[in-house]
Amino acid sequence: MNRPQLIEQIRQKKSYLCIGLDTDITKIPKHLQSHPDAVFEFNKAIIDATKDHCVSYKINTAFYESQGLKGWEAMEKTVHYIPKTHFTIADAKRGDIGNTSSQYAKTFFEVLPFDAVTVAPYMGEDSVRPFLEYENKWTIVLGLTSNAGSNDFQQLTFKTGITEKHLYEKVLEKVSTWGTPSNLMFVVGATKASDLGHIRTIIPDHFLLVPGVGAQGGSLQEVSKYGLNKDCGLLVNASRAVIFASGGEDYAEQAKLAALQYQSEMTAYL
Amino acid sequence: MNRPQLIEQIRQKKSYLCIGLDTDITKIPKHLQSHPDAVFEFNKAIIDATKDHCVSYKINTAFYESQGLKGWEAMEKTVHYIPKTHFTIADAKRGDIGNTSSQYAKTFFEVLPFDAVTVAPYMGEDSVRPFLEYENKWTIVLGLTSNAGSNDFQQLTFKTGITEKHLYEKVLEKVSTWGTPSNLMFVVGATKASDLGHIRTIIPDHFLLVPGVGAQGGSLQEVSKYGLNKDCGLLVNASRAVIFASGGEDYAEQAKLAALQYQSEMTAYL
Repeated sequence: MNRPQLIEQIRQKKSYLCIGLDTDITKIPKHLQSHPDAVFEFNKAIIDATKDHCVSYKINTAFYESQGLKGWEAMEKTVHYIPKTHFTIADAKRGDIGNTSSQYAKTFFEVLPFDAVTVAPYMGEDSVRPFLEYENKWTIVLGLTSNAGSNDFQQLTFKTGITEKHLYEKVLEKVSTWGTPSNLMFVVGATKASDLGHIRTIIPDHFLLVPGVGAQGGSLQEVSKYGLNKDCGLLVNASRAVIFASGGEDYAEQAKLAALQYQSEMTAYL
Repeated sequence: MNRPQLIEQIRQKKSYLCIGLDTDITKIPKHLQSHPDAVFEFNKAIIDATKDHCVSYKINTAFYESQGLKGWEAMEKTVHYIPKTHFTIADAKRGDIGNTSSQYAKTFFEVLPFDAVTVAPYMGEDSVRPFLEYENKWTIVLGLTSNAGSNDFQQLTFKTGITEKHLYEKVLEKVSTWGTPSNLMFVVGATKASDLGHIRTIIPDHFLLVPGVGAQGGSLQEVSKYGLNKDCGLLVNASRAVIFASGGEDYAEQAKLAALQYQSEMTAYL
């Protein structure tokens, strides 16, 4: 999916909601857990119930890998099941030397039909470049993440003369020269929404994938206030707050209501 | 495998060689490519031929994931096939928020029986901690990598008063406080062997996983000169230089000879 198509989906639905399919098999409703294809069955029902209210689904690969072969199979089935109208993200946090990153890019862009994959920046340009080489595919690089550990390195300060810069600012500045706002996005956590205004001065045009709204405590209002740009420029992710809105048999219905609530709020902000 | 057991293996074999099973299906010998289980068959022959000369095998997960379900199955079979005397590394470069890193740790330490997994440091302590919580398992955090892109961020300089520090030094210093030399190692590339001497002043006791010898041009002699400590403290990885030593039917025999050559050189340095 290219940038105009993504923007069109956002305009049509008046939503910039991404739903994170962090499908933890121990947290899905009891009546489903014994199903031979439990994770996929759960995802299918969630997708059917929520697809009118979101523009994107994000598959957190960790929750699938931890189920071994069966999990990988559920991931394959899920990404194929997501409607082509929706922007699909492999939240995989990959990144390695060039010949290895090429294999990861092949995994998520050729073997699996994802539109985007999340990538860690620590290993630098040649670890990111192979993902950027795919036409109409997206690389989503970690900028400022939403967890406590973001203080350990991302917030380290560099002093040059009288100016000070954090590592995450250096990452945004440098990585943004490797791609364009049409093939590159950044992960920016929602827990420090006021930083988003500053981040918009560095990368005004790029889409930002914003996790941390919902279970992690970020505010959608704040994120939207500081993060929206003329093309929307945001994909706000909610995972647990939507997919585990209910632990009972009404899980899909409750997920739909949670997604609808996000959508309504987003419609007001757009 | 714990630290005394690893050191004992190194002493017995007089080798600190790790063989990287970066099994690219397009590079294995032609006569094997049509085999229904080509990657595992190749790995099995390589392991049988080289196990007397190395102490560790490193599985680069990218090359398996890019084969989809079949690749994941080949990875499972391979890690189970490696003798228990050998230290097994999932070179996966994972790392995410805590609840997600826990899933990755489960993947490589419970679902699969790896001894160690490589982890990227960008997301900080809570992204690394879940891996460290497993007894007798190892977390191998990226310090200074061997690729050109290591200059982009790892070599960035922080000035504090008159002292200067690179990001990778900050990473080594901070991450080393999260674990011990008995559950934590660092990836340090071989292409800048002289940096190893300096790195040894920061982390004198930790094992270092050193890629970049062989196809990437690093010198085993230099790495050993600067990197060895009283417990050896090195696992030097060679991938392509061993497993693709020959592209013909004699691939296992040639891999054995390449591994033997590394072992002989290492015996001299120990």
